[in-house]
Amino acid sequence: MRKYSFSKHVIIANGQFPTHAIPLEIIRTAQTIICCDGAADSLMKHGIEPTVVIGDLDSISSKAKKQFAGKLIHIAEQETNDQTKAVEWAIAQGLQDLVIVGATGKREDHTIGNISLLANYGTQINVCSVTNYGIFCPVYGTTQLTSYPGQAISIFSLTPHIPISLFGLQYPLTNALLKSWWIGTLNTAVSDSFTIESEEGICIVFRSF
Amino acid sequence: MRKYSFSKHVIIANGQFPTHAIPLEIIRTAQTIICCDGAADSLMKHGIEPTVVIGDLDSISSKAKKQFAGKLIHIAEQETNDQTKAVEWAIAQGLQDLVIVGATGKREDHTIGNISLLANYGTQINVCSVTNYGIFCPVYGTTQLTSYPGQAISIFSLTPHIPISLFGLQYPLTNALLKSWWIGTLNTAVSDSFTIESEEGICIVFRSF
Repeated sequence: MRKYSFSKHVIIANGQFPTHAIPLEIIRTAQTIICCDGAADSLMKHGIEPTVVIGDLDSISSKAKKQFAGKLIHIAEQETNDQTKAVEWAIAQGLQDLVIVGATGKREDHTIGNISLLANYGTQINVCSVTNYGIFCPVYGTTQLTSYPGQAISIFSLTPHIPISLFGLQYPLTNALLKSWWIGTLNTAVSDSFTIESEEGICIVFRSF
Repeated sequence: MRKYSFSKHVIIANGQFPTHAIPLEIIRTAQTIICCDGAADSLMKHGIEPTVVIGDLDSISSKAKKQFAGKLIHIAEQETNDQTKAVEWAIAQGLQDLVIVGATGKREDHTIGNISLLANYGTQINVCSVTNYGIFCPVYGTTQLTSYPGQAISIFSLTPHIPISLFGLQYPLTNALLKSWWIGTLNTAVSDSFTIESEEGICIVFRSF
């Protein structure tokens, strides 16, 4: 496991509150903590003071509402989920680097949705999602990513009709179409970087800790 | 929550061992229990007797190996994961209805891969994956599915270039392209069935309990 450097601006999403040391350290050292409303009770339980609590505010307890009074930002709009509301608020504040934690580990359809939304956010800001197992980040076109030998790598294409090539992994690919989500999983890094090459492909990359 | 009727042939995959009453009841009443090797220790801990244990057998403890001696099926082949090895074994035995439990809840890249693999299996057998939150099933072309009013529904397209229509949901769609994974999430059933309509689209459907 490498030592990572993450943004000091953190969104705590509505999934499972982190248990792994890396996301917990990200929260502990954060400069800005943007809490999605469903996570407010977890923050209270863990003695964490958010900068703001954002969302519908329909899934926050009255106790947490009282505890975090003055920090609540109610956004009723139904077109986006709470994670997206938090990201949009952060962008409006001028925050350009965000790390999202707690976005996975409960309902799997939320997990899959939240991970894919990184590709939407990433056109505007630097963003990644850190789970109890690793890091998800969006990748556009040809990109080199850092790794370490033996690191588990999975690559999901959000543009399965666009060919991609992979260099520097145990199982390289040349102009492959990742037509199903499983096809790019269970790869392994062999050195300190690897490259995804495509014209206009959009991928989500998972790197294990 | 509805009462469901599931297959008596169960695969216990390598993810988090179930905690919800529905997957636990599926295991308790199973006629055939096919255990993926990484899950063998969980089965031993829960006092569950598998029919067979299948996989690389590289992640099973020596204690579980001894406990389940005579039931171990070693398949070294590296092209498929343990869930797929278990499904292929089941198909070879003539089992036509399978329910998979424990396929999610650990590494999210495994979760996403395992869920998408349902679309591969579903061309040969009836199959679904039951988690602690709901049921995933593969859907090909136009299909009507059972539901109940208020049931959370998420639809993921594995063929994002093929238009699909949705009828009988709170947010219907007409000839829509689900170009990202999040677009078809967070829908709700309004009655006891809904329909996905497409020429040749392949979807994975999540229905909450």
